[in-house]
Amino acid sequence: MSAEIICVGTEMLLGNILNSNAQYLAIQLAKLGIPHYYQTVVGDNPERLKHVIEIASQRSEILIFTGGLGPTPDDLTCETIADFFNTPLVERPEIIEDIARKYAQRGRQMTPSNRKQALIPKGAEILPNPTGTAPGIIWQPQPGLTIFTFPGVPSEMQRMWEETAVPYLRNLGWGKETIYSRMLKFWGIPESALAEKVAAYLNLTNPTVAPYASKGEVKLRISAKAATEAAAQELIAPVHKQLQDIAGLDYYGADDDTLASVVGELLRRDKETLSVAESCTGGGLGQMLTETSGSSDYFWGGVISYDNSVKINLLDVNAEDLAKCGAVSATVAEQMALGVRSRLGTSWGLSITGIAGPTGGTETKPVGLVYIGLAKPNGEVESFEYRWGTGRSRSLIRHLSTCSALDQLRRKLLTR
Amino acid sequence: MSAEIICVGTEMLLGNILNSNAQYLAIQLAKLGIPHYYQTVVGDNPERLKHVIEIASQRSEILIFTGGLGPTPDDLTCETIADFFNTPLVERPEIIEDIARKYAQRGRQMTPSNRKQALIPKGAEILPNPTGTAPGIIWQPQPGLTIFTFPGVPSEMQRMWEETAVPYLRNLGWGKETIYSRMLKFWGIPESALAEKVAAYLNLTNPTVAPYASKGEVKLRISAKAATEAAAQELIAPVHKQLQDIAGLDYYGADDDTLASVVGELLRRDKETLSVAESCTGGGLGQMLTETSGSSDYFWGGVISYDNSVKINLLDVNAEDLAKCGAVSATVAEQMALGVRSRLGTSWGLSITGIAGPTGGTETKPVGLVYIGLAKPNGEVESFEYRWGTGRSRSLIRHLSTCSALDQLRRKLLTR
Repeated sequence: MSAEIICVGTEMLLGNILNSNAQYLAIQLAKLGIPHYYQTVVGDNPERLKHVIEIASQRSEILIFTGGLGPTPDDLTCETIADFFNTPLVERPEIIEDIARKYAQRGRQMTPSNRKQALIPKGAEILPNPTGTAPGIIWQPQPGLTIFTFPGVPSEMQRMWEETAVPYLRNLGWGKETIYSRMLKFWGIPESALAEKVAAYLNLTNPTVAPYASKGEVKLRISAKAATEAAAQELIAPVHKQLQDIAGLDYYGADDDTLASVVGELLRRDKETLSVAESCTGGGLGQMLTETSGSSDYFWGGVISYDNSVKINLLDVNAEDLAKCGAVSATVAEQMALGVRSRLGTSWGLSITGIAGPTGGTETKPVGLVYIGLAKPNGEVESFEYRWGTGRSRSLIRHLSTCSALDQLRRKLLTR
Repeated sequence: MSAEIICVGTEMLLGNILNSNAQYLAIQLAKLGIPHYYQTVVGDNPERLKHVIEIASQRSEILIFTGGLGPTPDDLTCETIADFFNTPLVERPEIIEDIARKYAQRGRQMTPSNRKQALIPKGAEILPNPTGTAPGIIWQPQPGLTIFTFPGVPSEMQRMWEETAVPYLRNLGWGKETIYSRMLKFWGIPESALAEKVAAYLNLTNPTVAPYASKGEVKLRISAKAATEAAAQELIAPVHKQLQDIAGLDYYGADDDTLASVVGELLRRDKETLSVAESCTGGGLGQMLTETSGSSDYFWGGVISYDNSVKINLLDVNAEDLAKCGAVSATVAEQMALGVRSRLGTSWGLSITGIAGPTGGTETKPVGLVYIGLAKPNGEVESFEYRWGTGRSRSLIRHLSTCSALDQLRRKLLTR
């Protein structure tokens, strides 16, 4: 038994809108424990829609349609479904009354084209739409096949799903099992290396473990199926613990944790404060730290030293060293970190200087070369060199540098 | 002749990610004039993926796959396609070399699991991935059928599409009639007000004009269909000019223009420089200004004065005024702007102080109250008050404030 999502609308084939309905419904099906293997998008075209219905009705037992229920001539989902199953449409007076009432409320007259929305297949139930004019249907056109239709407007669809479809599906026995997921997050290890370390876990069946990677971050999603969320959590907890142990310091948090929020918690725990000095990231590190509400408890601020004069005047970088080593160097990164820590009077000072590109690289100092400086509470300083490669975008190099700076501080806070 | 998009990944069936790749590719296919009638999402499951390939290869001549090219065991798009067409996989040494080189650049060792990414169907061409390790393929497994595979990471997929797939498709004769669009951008006017001003244009047929709005920005997309890009541009240009005239100062640019890049161009034109002082945005204004490569010509840096001590010590805000008026006040915004301009020695100083929430609001100073200060080349200073409302998220309030600060400077640079 499985469900399938079919989104109808030429606007999705033209790329005019993002198909967020499929994502919403996918999450909802997972919550109810209803398996779901296919999503299809098709235009407002009866022949192609019938072709899709034919395929879907052979492989899935629940078909969920969104879109194509409006009053205009190109809205033809409902009549095409009826036609495919050789069923006549009947006009339902209660729908006409409902539409007329909604129009009257807004001080408007119902138009003749709205009558079309009152036509539903003979034998189908009305799936009421509390906010819009287009109702959906719940229909068993043949044994073992249930069809739901929803309008394409996300807010209308979601309310109809929650208020009518969910109770209907629970009544059929769904929702006794739930799928619950936790996302573990890692920094400083490539996806392939992590996947090899945890290879044995990738074959588990309940919970399952699956790896993801994007913009330098690697994630492992643990998903468990159980009767209750608490029972699912019990299946997840030991696997979470084991994966965390295997990954060691490369693991930094789960779900809503970010590198910035985790660093913030550690600083708060130790009653310490942080300031930043940024060159190539131009403020991005400060911005990331202040995304967390309450960050003023440990983050005091910093200096954006994009121009060398700012490095000298506000961060006390030595002008001779700057001339000798260049702005992108371990020496300058260290002096920036020491300078901002001292000027702002914080426990830690964290700095970034590098070449974000696409221009500004040289043979010895290519685009992607970045130094991170970390001045510690005891007055010592350390630096870290990164070479992100010349193929990456300015925006990605800046993002990777910002996250890596936070990650270095995180490791230090955990291991000193 | 038509193309079909097949997105592979269990994470989409679970609703973990939004399928933005399908939208990107849909827009791209429309630009090239390639008809496109179906999109399918299927999980990382070989049997179901083969079922999808069987259906798609019977109704479409170009199949575009995204996802499932990574190094982990659940990435099996390429091998499943090869298996469906009874074609062996061959290891391509040039892919291994490329992956090893990318790892080496980042100071890392390639892992054995990466070798999997070098296996492609016999007879397929490599579709190079300039930024990531997973290459795609271009392959004709049978006459009249062309397959493209791309990784699921949007930035990698998009670059591979632009650099390799588009020239390949143009070479096959696609893209002779083109749909070309220009996006006009506006700040400081609500969507409904702009739509009313330009109402007559929303009914045009070639070019068409359509409004969009997101996160405080309003856009008008002008789209024209023509044999060449130049001919489309000729249809667009007069409409662009007229819409710009109607909107006046609320129009700020088109296409790749950002508020930050437009401000940068005006500063460069006038050979002037800028520094910033940020409280509630924590570095976001500096980050936005430095997203533009070459911004060091006019942007010198700034001070992130999250803590009040930094406002006093590094920006020379008067401690008494700070105590009397509070950090979120016109007085402090003005002193921050004057302070940073003077400390950094720039032509302009731009400051932001406010309450981004969700906590920290009071009856008289609610969440969403933000002051922007602008210190001018002649030493005068001005401030602007914004009340974004308590219902908006921290992230949106920070974004709106950053953009509005740039917009105030833009208006001043255009009208002084």
